[in-house]
Amino acid sequence: MKLQLLLTGNELMAGHIVDSNSAMIAEQLAERGFGIARKVTIGDDFNGLVQEIRQMTADSDVLLINGGLGPTVDDLTATALAEAAGQPLTEYAAAVQHLQQWCQQKNLRLNEANRKQALLPEQASIIANPIGSAVGIALRLNDCLVLCTPGVPSELRAMLADSLLDTISQHYPNRHVPRTQRWQTFGIGESTMQQIISDKLPDWPPQIDIGFRAGLPLVEIKFTIASEQDAPLLDHWLQRLRGVIGDNIISEGTDGLAETVVRLLQQQGQQLTTAESCTGGLIASQITEVAGASQCFEAGFVSYSNSIKQLMLGVQPLSLEQHGAVSEPVVREMARGALAHSAADCAIAVSGIAGPDGGTADKPVGTVWIAWGSQEQLNSVRLQFNGPRKWFQQLVAATALDLIRRRLLGIDEEPRYFKRRKAG
Amino acid sequence: MKLQLLLTGNELMAGHIVDSNSAMIAEQLAERGFGIARKVTIGDDFNGLVQEIRQMTADSDVLLINGGLGPTVDDLTATALAEAAGQPLTEYAAAVQHLQQWCQQKNLRLNEANRKQALLPEQASIIANPIGSAVGIALRLNDCLVLCTPGVPSELRAMLADSLLDTISQHYPNRHVPRTQRWQTFGIGESTMQQIISDKLPDWPPQIDIGFRAGLPLVEIKFTIASEQDAPLLDHWLQRLRGVIGDNIISEGTDGLAETVVRLLQQQGQQLTTAESCTGGLIASQITEVAGASQCFEAGFVSYSNSIKQLMLGVQPLSLEQHGAVSEPVVREMARGALAHSAADCAIAVSGIAGPDGGTADKPVGTVWIAWGSQEQLNSVRLQFNGPRKWFQQLVAATALDLIRRRLLGIDEEPRYFKRRKAG
Repeated sequence: MKLQLLLTGNELMAGHIVDSNSAMIAEQLAERGFGIARKVTIGDDFNGLVQEIRQMTADSDVLLINGGLGPTVDDLTATALAEAAGQPLTEYAAAVQHLQQWCQQKNLRLNEANRKQALLPEQASIIANPIGSAVGIALRLNDCLVLCTPGVPSELRAMLADSLLDTISQHYPNRHVPRTQRWQTFGIGESTMQQIISDKLPDWPPQIDIGFRAGLPLVEIKFTIASEQDAPLLDHWLQRLRGVIGDNIISEGTDGLAETVVRLLQQQGQQLTTAESCTGGLIASQITEVAGASQCFEAGFVSYSNSIKQLMLGVQPLSLEQHGAVSEPVVREMARGALAHSAADCAIAVSGIAGPDGGTADKPVGTVWIAWGSQEQLNSVRLQFNGPRKWFQQLVAATALDLIRRRLLGIDEEPRYFKRRKAG
Repeated sequence: MKLQLLLTGNELMAGHIVDSNSAMIAEQLAERGFGIARKVTIGDDFNGLVQEIRQMTADSDVLLINGGLGPTVDDLTATALAEAAGQPLTEYAAAVQHLQQWCQQKNLRLNEANRKQALLPEQASIIANPIGSAVGIALRLNDCLVLCTPGVPSELRAMLADSLLDTISQHYPNRHVPRTQRWQTFGIGESTMQQIISDKLPDWPPQIDIGFRAGLPLVEIKFTIASEQDAPLLDHWLQRLRGVIGDNIISEGTDGLAETVVRLLQQQGQQLTTAESCTGGLIASQITEVAGASQCFEAGFVSYSNSIKQLMLGVQPLSLEQHGAVSEPVVREMARGALAHSAADCAIAVSGIAGPDGGTADKPVGTVWIAWGSQEQLNSVRLQFNGPRKWFQQLVAATALDLIRRRLLGIDEEPRYFKRRKAG
């Protein structure tokens, strides 16, 4: 079975956006046992689209087309597909109904631009779009199954999950699906991770394929075995790998740092509070993005200036004067103040220099003090993160969440990344 | 002049990485007046590469190949290009010398794997790689200029800047660079925007190309004119468009909502504070992501529970009891409390139901009260945003920032989106 992918959009050709849809499609197809043989990307060009559809359908069993289903004049996929198939465009009642419902939900009037999205090739069938206005299109052409999806990533994602993968699987059933497992890790870079595995587990079996995907701030490790017979082997080697990098595993699955911390807090019936200077509310917003966060998070403090640190959190003027805002005494007083003002069980406090300005010889841009723990047992550390402002904020937030995660799990050993990040 | 792009790499096809090289190449080409007509991506497959090179060179003036120049067995570009051109591979002395220098710099011994990178088609010329081991390849084939570059983004970037763009420009000099302009807008969807333009400005001239890029929460509009002669025409029509959607334009450039609000606050010497319930610190973190935010933002309050709303912001227990946390009296008291506790000039306060739980018949999931303004003039509105939790939080944060932006600009008219979002 040969599957090809055709992407369309001037914004893709002009480099205004990075195409993340291809990777999403490829990953989800792989989970069903399908691979993409070839991918073509072109702009919003009618003749180009028609030609590409003709050539690609002649040479594939399945052609996925992504993009060009929107309401605007440069959205040409339905028209080009009709032309390539030699079919007129017809208004589909079911598509009009979908558009009407969509507009009603959004409190919009159905306009002419949107109504165009109900015009599909005569012999097409509709693929439901559970969240957007554009329905998908399925059509047989040149003995090839053509499936058209919108370019909006959230809509594509919903359609893949909702029906698209099922449709392909129905046409090509009983595909062999390799078994995969994912871990989210924090604190070890991709190449170091690879080095650790080849040093510590040199006999890693070839039957278990390891892939890495480095994101900010997590690195995902993906393990794949081709045959279910190797499942015990996988279990054995995952257990060995846990022994090597266990404390860096955030979740065996897809949960990130905030989800993991919220889950641990819920399990332990604990309340967390935050006192943020250089991250400006990022830690609180990551926690509250998780559904159910209200059970374990009541109060967060964003104290950007010295006077507010005093007013809001009761930081001592003398500490600020003698040690500066980015210092151990101040960050500890911030944590204690947040605990006192919120009646939470544990706190995260951060104070640092995100840059680009504000650094000194003593405390260059990238310096941060983090305090974490309870009134009874409060830890603090000075770390250094050299990079752009947004990157610094993301990494400080992630590190703070990782430190509270370690505490909630009772991991006593110092994280590996302290060596690299500890200043001075 | 027709330019095509061929990308190769199994990791691109499997979705393990997102291809950011294409966008980099496209943007840099555009600055020299070149566009990419078509892009093909395939895995590390020798026959596929040879066939693609033959077909694409027959149909292009320039073919850029990216990837497959590394030292490993799955790097096939040089071999495939030699095969497609009917030329043997030859070891190039200059490439060996480059490899030796590169190894010396890294304190490595030149191994066989790396030495393979000096084997190039007989009639090729070398494109210097200022940072990596793989030299680039230039070759004429089928009357097409073929240029091969490594897939490592940093090496590609360095080669583009160093010589590649110059090479193309030398072959195709005096390219016309089209003039483009971007606006960021908030509060009008892509299709409604198009409808407004065709309704209100039906004579929009064909010389001005309009493109839209819908993101969350902004829609970018891009205007392009092919000829500098049309600059006065562009100015005239942009002025007319300002008359129609002026209050929805966040910036004429690339600044988003937070950057625009920070800039306005700085210009007016004003301080902002935030009191967030359902957005949990997101508004504060967006503001503090902007460099220089400390000049206009000192304090943010994340008050997730009722008791914290009382403790932190002085919200009246009676207001909470009589009206509930998501109510006009409470959100106004939150704003007033934040102003009183921070000595800021203006405040944003939000209280809503992000879901998935917590909705009632009166106040379903997606309900939010927003208050914005000063102690003297405080506004408030109830809006409805139906969607997933994260989407809700993003849109509430954006709306709150837009409302304070409108106030800072002295825009009195009610935003268009109130009609759609106002509950009840």
